[in-house]
Amino acid sequence: MFQQPATLLHVLDLVGVAVFAASGALSAGRKGLDLLGVLVIAVVTAIGGGTLRDILLDRHPIFWIADPVYLVVIAIAALITLLYVRHRQPPGRALAIADALGLALFTITGTRIAEAAHVAPLIAVAMGTMTGVAGGMVRDVLSAEIPLILRRDIYATAAIAGSTVYVALQAAGVGRDAAALIGLAVVVLLRLLAIVWGLRLPVFRIEE
Amino acid sequence: MFQQPATLLHVLDLVGVAVFAASGALSAGRKGLDLLGVLVIAVVTAIGGGTLRDILLDRHPIFWIADPVYLVVIAIAALITLLYVRHRQPPGRALAIADALGLALFTITGTRIAEAAHVAPLIAVAMGTMTGVAGGMVRDVLSAEIPLILRRDIYATAAIAGSTVYVALQAAGVGRDAAALIGLAVVVLLRLLAIVWGLRLPVFRIEE
Amino acid sequence: MFQQPATLLHVLDLVGVAVFAASGALSAGRKGLDLLGVLVIAVVTAIGGGTLRDILLDRHPIFWIADPVYLVVIAIAALITLLYVRHRQPPGRALAIADALGLALFTITGTRIAEAAHVAPLIAVAMGTMTGVAGGMVRDVLSAEIPLILRRDIYATAAIAGSTVYVALQAAGVGRDAAALIGLAVVVLLRLLAIVWGLRLPVFRIEE
Repeated sequence: MFQQPATLLHVLDLVGVAVFAASGALSAGRKGLDLLGVLVIAVVTAIGGGTLRDILLDRHPIFWIADPVYLVVIAIAALITLLYVRHRQPPGRALAIADALGLALFTITGTRIAEAAHVAPLIAVAMGTMTGVAGGMVRDVLSAEIPLILRRDIYATAAIAGSTVYVALQAAGVGRDAAALIGLAVVVLLRLLAIVWGLRLPVFRIEE
Repeated sequence: MFQQPATLLHVLDLVGVAVFAASGALSAGRKGLDLLGVLVIAVVTAIGGGTLRDILLDRHPIFWIADPVYLVVIAIAALITLLYVRHRQPPGRALAIADALGLALFTITGTRIAEAAHVAPLIAVAMGTMTGVAGGMVRDVLSAEIPLILRRDIYATAAIAGSTVYVALQAAGVGRDAAALIGLAVVVLLRLLAIVWGLRLPVFRIEE
Repeated sequence: MFQQPATLLHVLDLVGVAVFAASGALSAGRKGLDLLGVLVIAVVTAIGGGTLRDILLDRHPIFWIADPVYLVVIAIAALITLLYVRHRQPPGRALAIADALGLALFTITGTRIAEAAHVAPLIAVAMGTMTGVAGGMVRDVLSAEIPLILRRDIYATAAIAGSTVYVALQAAGVGRDAAALIGLAVVVLLRLLAIVWGLRLPVFRIEE
């Protein structure tokens, strides 16, 4: 799945980038940033995770430096988002589904890239999860907020679960493409069920 | 301009570093940090953008690791700033001009370094802008604030404009040195006009 | 000391990582993060400084990618911390001492690794200090706070002093192992004395 139809993978990857750019633009809009601030936040949200992954794995050139179409897609997605919400409410449900898909794609792609660098399975899962969630964390840090994923319902947890399933299935002899599809499905399903049912991890609070 | 008189370029680069260190020290002073905190913020503001650029372009050793004089200049600039403002108001106008010059130098130098790594023009502009503005962004993040450049008057915009002019002029056949000078002028002028006239990009706010 | 008994060094290093993970988990607990948020903060606190050092020195694979036992130790330390504080007050004094030890170990190890990359002494001290303190800074940034070490009593200062002593002693002809032991002692002592006596660096505040 991830190798033969390179075009399909690339398109899916760009869809993930566009979705994360839109989510970044919406978040920036809530903070009253200016046009350029919105663009910067959109870029950081969309490429932050993959950039950190490439740096940690010493994988050069970084994906968006090698292929500038990523920045173009992000700019277009951010501008469309700006124009859209000028007249209408942001489509919450559609965005949540798209965001879950983006999270799933980034997570499994990130895991695969780490595998290709011959790291231990635990590291591959950590890299995949980071690819999926780090962009959103940097977005929140730039907005001077505690990153949402550190305190919110199942989000990084869905990424960890999907990445682990993908790695475990392969270790159990399942083919890479089937494992990737199942891993993607696990992330999307867990994430959407968490939204629908309001699932959360236990919160840990120390009294002072 | 950027190649033969290596000494002039180096001096200008150190001036940019010193100015950004002073701006970092002033910002830290407003937060009531201790002496070391002031120094750390000054260092981060002055070298943050160039460091991120070097890491993303896989350019080693990082410029300030290769040449420790940068850290020395930053420490001196920060200390002078501390001593100066103990008795006097910080010279707002002079600092704004120096800051515009620092922004211009960092932006054009950053664009040039990215060009030398044979990236696409769009990436060169992004790298140049990042070299100019990322240090200030990290400074604000460490101060637990939304980065100024994401919500303020024309700042990163001036960097983008100057870097784009520099790249476009070269594509149109203008020599590198002339293009660099014009690019520098564009950044400084735009930035200063923005301050004088209070120019701002449209702000984008979503009601919740 | 740092070469023959590789096992001892590795054990000490893992102790440092565990202590910093516990301190990260406690900090996350005060913010009411969920289980995964606690884990992420613990990881970042424990490996942030060394990761930044390895990236800046172009040292690949990054230490925790090369040896996944780091992540395992961090997860265990964070979970033990969570279980412990559920029923008891965190052991403030023991943690402070352990934290001082972790700071000392990370600082001297970081300085040594930078030395091995043949950087200037000033850069080695900067790298050592960063190895010791950057993890805690990222922890605070993710908690949307101004990093403690920028405004608190002698902390990074202790790291700088110990690292400088280590480098200076070697320049003066003292053997590496003796220099390292003395450097470690300087960090721990300065840090603990600062806590006991409430030492602080002068705070620098600009009136606006």
